[in-house]
Amino acid sequence: MAARFEVPVVSFLSDYGTLDEFVGVCHGVMLRIAPDVRIIDLTHEIAPHDTRAGGLALARAVQYVPEGVVLAIVDPGVGTDRRAVAVEVEGGFLVGPDNGVLAPAVAMLGGARRAVSLTNEAYQLPAPGPTFAGRDVFAPAAAHLVTGVDLADLGDDLDPALLQPGLLPLTHHGDGAVHAEVLWVDRFGNVQLNVDPEELAALGLGPGDIVGVRIGDAERSARWVRSYADAGPGELALLVDSYGLVCLALDRRSAAAETGLSPASAVTLSRGGDA
Amino acid sequence: MAARFEVPVVSFLSDYGTLDEFVGVCHGVMLRIAPDVRIIDLTHEIAPHDTRAGGLALARAVQYVPEGVVLAIVDPGVGTDRRAVAVEVEGGFLVGPDNGVLAPAVAMLGGARRAVSLTNEAYQLPAPGPTFAGRDVFAPAAAHLVTGVDLADLGDDLDPALLQPGLLPLTHHGDGAVHAEVLWVDRFGNVQLNVDPEELAALGLGPGDIVGVRIGDAERSARWVRSYADAGPGELALLVDSYGLVCLALDRRSAAAETGLSPASAVTLSRGGDA
Amino acid sequence: MAARFEVPVVSFLSDYGTLDEFVGVCHGVMLRIAPDVRIIDLTHEIAPHDTRAGGLALARAVQYVPEGVVLAIVDPGVGTDRRAVAVEVEGGFLVGPDNGVLAPAVAMLGGARRAVSLTNEAYQLPAPGPTFAGRDVFAPAAAHLVTGVDLADLGDDLDPALLQPGLLPLTHHGDGAVHAEVLWVDRFGNVQLNVDPEELAALGLGPGDIVGVRIGDAERSARWVRSYADAGPGELALLVDSYGLVCLALDRRSAAAETGLSPASAVTLSRGGDA
Repeated sequence: MAARFEVPVVSFLSDYGTLDEFVGVCHGVMLRIAPDVRIIDLTHEIAPHDTRAGGLALARAVQYVPEGVVLAIVDPGVGTDRRAVAVEVEGGFLVGPDNGVLAPAVAMLGGARRAVSLTNEAYQLPAPGPTFAGRDVFAPAAAHLVTGVDLADLGDDLDPALLQPGLLPLTHHGDGAVHAEVLWVDRFGNVQLNVDPEELAALGLGPGDIVGVRIGDAERSARWVRSYADAGPGELALLVDSYGLVCLALDRRSAAAETGLSPASAVTLSRGGDA
Repeated sequence: MAARFEVPVVSFLSDYGTLDEFVGVCHGVMLRIAPDVRIIDLTHEIAPHDTRAGGLALARAVQYVPEGVVLAIVDPGVGTDRRAVAVEVEGGFLVGPDNGVLAPAVAMLGGARRAVSLTNEAYQLPAPGPTFAGRDVFAPAAAHLVTGVDLADLGDDLDPALLQPGLLPLTHHGDGAVHAEVLWVDRFGNVQLNVDPEELAALGLGPGDIVGVRIGDAERSARWVRSYADAGPGELALLVDSYGLVCLALDRRSAAAETGLSPASAVTLSRGGDA
Repeated sequence: MAARFEVPVVSFLSDYGTLDEFVGVCHGVMLRIAPDVRIIDLTHEIAPHDTRAGGLALARAVQYVPEGVVLAIVDPGVGTDRRAVAVEVEGGFLVGPDNGVLAPAVAMLGGARRAVSLTNEAYQLPAPGPTFAGRDVFAPAAAHLVTGVDLADLGDDLDPALLQPGLLPLTHHGDGAVHAEVLWVDRFGNVQLNVDPEELAALGLGPGDIVGVRIGDAERSARWVRSYADAGPGELALLVDSYGLVCLALDRRSAAAETGLSPASAVTLSRGGDA
């Protein structure tokens, strides 16, 4: 078989953590199958079983990794009849459980072209007990795909329309406000919302304006700045982050800690907050 | 010298953590000696100085990594006269302190064929102070071996029978029960015991049965299921894990947190628990 | 352009942590530009924005990594007008913010030969919002340099004398004592001071001697031993560590926890402590 990728890269995300040897074992399995594979560890610190956080992190990352295979293992349904799948997109493949964790990244990469259920045991590792799906099914599939094995060889064809959709929260608009949700809090405590700056522009808001921020019963305000450093000491600021989404931040401090916001918290943005 | 391995792989485990630059420095040292080396980080989060946990993690991992060199550094006796060793097994070498951390993996790989004490300073780094054994002795030895340096060049021959044995706990059988010990708690809180399912079969137990579980003074019971997802909500379950050993689990929750079990805790398994 | 390095290595340190996908994204960006690059992760657990700790870790590490490019991102001033720079030293380049984080490593490597401000956007990634400097500026610069792009192509020449200096604390000598500062506490709790053993020799102290250790108002003493294991149980010991600096330690226990010392704490060493 011909190599499909100029450089065989697997970009790997999971909720395995690094306390155990799970991640290293998956690396080992892939290197045995594909000795030339280059593995990028995106992160393995997704909270256990948090497919929403895993899917969002994957979507943020995939546009920056080389063509190849994306392997994402956040799998609360391991051992159930949830499917293990591989999905072809432009530029490569995604491999993981069919529970929505792949969906935002698949959408970001232009949608699924083909998909299979990973049912062909010839491309899996035999397990001494029940399957350790990452080690025995997913990592082998990723490694075989990156070396040029045809998708169809890995299992049964699956209609891409039947793949589990992701649960990307949508904003709601009403009463002159954008009703939003926290997508992500990064290490520095910046709070990313599911809000495109165009949605604020539609309210007549722009850089330099004061934006009303309702968090629970509390009414706050945030000045729309261009960068973290433009915020005054202790001042809650709103800015477009490096992914192009609206974010709440404090200069050199954690906005999440100061506001109590965490992923999936509700936030309402509107005009006319007081400075 | 001829390359011994088709792909030069070092699989690396330690208790260094990743807060400091220790692991990165060992990578740097190996890449300077062996520019083509591929390094698999198994885990560096073994609890400081816990040779038992390090040895068990290594034994779980080694059967899944490519042929090459295994480097394991958990070294409470650094600076004492404990030996630094390299051990030849089928398919490669293990390098580390001679304190038992290598022993379970050596056994898993079929036993030691040859061993040396790493006494030849020509294959070590000069240290500005006392030796940083990982950086100055172990990492260089691993890198030299993976490029094809002969084991005998690294130091004095050592009778493999004199290597420090590992302390793998054995079960005890009596009174119709298996007296077992917790080997490992993984990130998801699953509790692995030092029990082969054959030992339960010898008590007449099998999948579907209720197993009595004594933890301290508490008598519990666990249903023998085939996968995590087969456990009812909140139900303590017993299953054969993906390493082929008996394990206590809760579906999507931490059995360790719920039972209070941790590595080395005693657990007694018997027939006739009440459901 | 010709490859400048036999093996293209980027040694990467940051305060990004591994909870998010930042580090993986930077790996992806580098691999897209330089498909053959080998990346060494020195550590990504520098405390957020702690340029002092980052600079010290980098200085400890750089002498052990292969020739190539060092990428260091600890960047509290992201979004301000602090410069993004690349610095040429003997054997390679360092890339990062011009805030002192590179300075100790530059000094360790013999000083800066040339420097540029990373102003040429042709060698950067376009950002959907404000710049994510690691992803969009620093990682691309490191990757281009390691493939052989000329330093001068990356931006405007900068007088190396104008680079931000590091803040390496100096000892003070007086009253028969060395007034020192804690540089670093490693994972095992060993407390590294900014003291060269020659400074103690100048007080007439040497291995085997009892050294007076003043920490705040407390007068302690420590025996100068040759290795961790030479300390008695619970005995505070002083030794030359594997970087050649004076360090306080307890055998198999955390000297930092026992003494309350942390980075930047003051410690005074003198003769005549009581054993």
